[in-house]
Amino acid sequence: MTLPEMQDLIARGPYLNWLGLEVLALDEDSIEVRAKWREEWVASTRLMQTHGGILAALIDFAADFALVCRIGHGVPTIDLRVDYHRLAKPGDLVAKGRVIKFGRQFSTCEAQVTQDGALIASGRGTYITAPLPGKPPGA
Amino acid sequence: MTLPEMQDLIARGPYLNWLGLEVLALDEDSIEVRAKWREEWVASTRLMQTHGGILAALIDFAADFALVCRIGHGVPTIDLRVDYHRLAKPGDLVAKGRVIKFGRQFSTCEAQVTQDGALIASGRGTYITAPLPGKPPGA
Amino acid sequence: MTLPEMQDLIARGPYLNWLGLEVLALDEDSIEVRAKWREEWVASTRLMQTHGGILAALIDFAADFALVCRIGHGVPTIDLRVDYHRLAKPGDLVAKGRVIKFGRQFSTCEAQVTQDGALIASGRGTYITAPLPGKPPGA
Amino acid sequence: MTLPEMQDLIARGPYLNWLGLEVLALDEDSIEVRAKWREEWVASTRLMQTHGGILAALIDFAADFALVCRIGHGVPTIDLRVDYHRLAKPGDLVAKGRVIKFGRQFSTCEAQVTQDGALIASGRGTYITAPLPGKPPGA
Repeated sequence: MTLPEMQDLIARGPYLNWLGLEVLALDEDSIEVRAKWREEWVASTRLMQTHGGILAALIDFAADFALVCRIGHGVPTIDLRVDYHRLAKPGDLVAKGRVIKFGRQFSTCEAQVTQDGALIASGRGTYITAPLPGKPPGA
Repeated sequence: MTLPEMQDLIARGPYLNWLGLEVLALDEDSIEVRAKWREEWVASTRLMQTHGGILAALIDFAADFALVCRIGHGVPTIDLRVDYHRLAKPGDLVAKGRVIKFGRQFSTCEAQVTQDGALIASGRGTYITAPLPGKPPGA
Repeated sequence: MTLPEMQDLIARGPYLNWLGLEVLALDEDSIEVRAKWREEWVASTRLMQTHGGILAALIDFAADFALVCRIGHGVPTIDLRVDYHRLAKPGDLVAKGRVIKFGRQFSTCEAQVTQDGALIASGRGTYITAPLPGKPPGA
Repeated sequence: MTLPEMQDLIARGPYLNWLGLEVLALDEDSIEVRAKWREEWVASTRLMQTHGGILAALIDFAADFALVCRIGHGVPTIDLRVDYHRLAKPGDLVAKGRVIKFGRQFSTCEAQVTQDGALIASGRGTYITAPLPGKPPGA
């Protein structure tokens, strides 16, 4: 899959569109995207930090789409772990995902979110990489 | 904290507002909210399922705000685990959170998301319940 | 599966034997066992607390074997989360496991470990409940 | 802390002794140990695989002790995630731990377990790195 094809795939998902994802890099086992900050991401107007749910979405996306070059589409998430390291300030975020172990039934990937080079959140998820009868990809 | 006070607290957070949260029930150790579906939640237009990042946000919110009656405000999330059980269809979701163990330094809570009574996702998180010098609540 | 059959199944596993597990209760979706304390469990001789790896093993066992009545044997663990709530003192522990969501491909279960009624640790795991070609159960 | 000092610290813990840990490498942010296989680790005599609870203990140990050079002793585990990638055969295991984010209140570390170079399990944990009044280290 080429970078424009990946960008096109992302554009077809309403929530991914809302996250404002721009693909920065892509290879067989990893992906890197920039997410464009929006006011709706703010958890509290006093601190102006981006909500943890946005960071979780970026971790899930990057871990999931690290598998896309092998699979051809997003795959269902089995479960997700996110660790929060620092508050994110208003501004874009960069998310990188990487395959830890690719398996025929399920696969494990990790991801991290940074802002201006500082580690904001990191985590890992398990994804279904077996063809599931009656359960289509993209969860 | 009363239910209207909790509703008012939620209204002050832009992202929680965007999630369309309506408080259904509240007591010292738990909270239940309804989240109003919006088109931006859709992961893929073919399946129309709600994206896992929205479900993660609801798990984090409900687990975190199960602590609010004791603490008086949202607290920083240390880490989060989410298990995905079923695809959610277009429509509102209900999230319930409950304290598993309250501690002076950090606390563990669990939460689940349902749709029309079916379990969509569940999970747990660890939250800072110690006063943190220089690190304010609400992450 | 009857309680003596379950006790017999456990007796065939060297590590489960070493944990000194006695089945207290069993039904289609849950299991409860007592684990017999041994000196090798101690993390530090100053505090005499049971090591977190023992607690993790009990969480994994109880979550996994909550599925045994449906499946007939232990199943491979995909991943595990454990939250540590209190130090365990020298003495036996009780572990309870329960199915959260049973699926044809994989299932999610939760478990807790108590000592004299106090919550020591809790957690959840994802387990393979599909027949895996070439990957036998019991991991 | 020197490698012999670390080996001596490990020798004082009964459970760590039982795991047969030999320190292979050590620096400010990481640790690598070999764990000596024993028959009691076996989950099922048919497959002879090492039980997931042993792998979880090694992940927890390596993640925790990646902090030891900074802290001077083991620290309490808040929570742990373990992903299981392959069955381990009878034989020694190597565990490596690394600090992801060091914080004054709590820290996140990751670890992996390999056998003959193959990835068996990986995971991450959160650890208390603040001095806890009345709650001593070593959980």
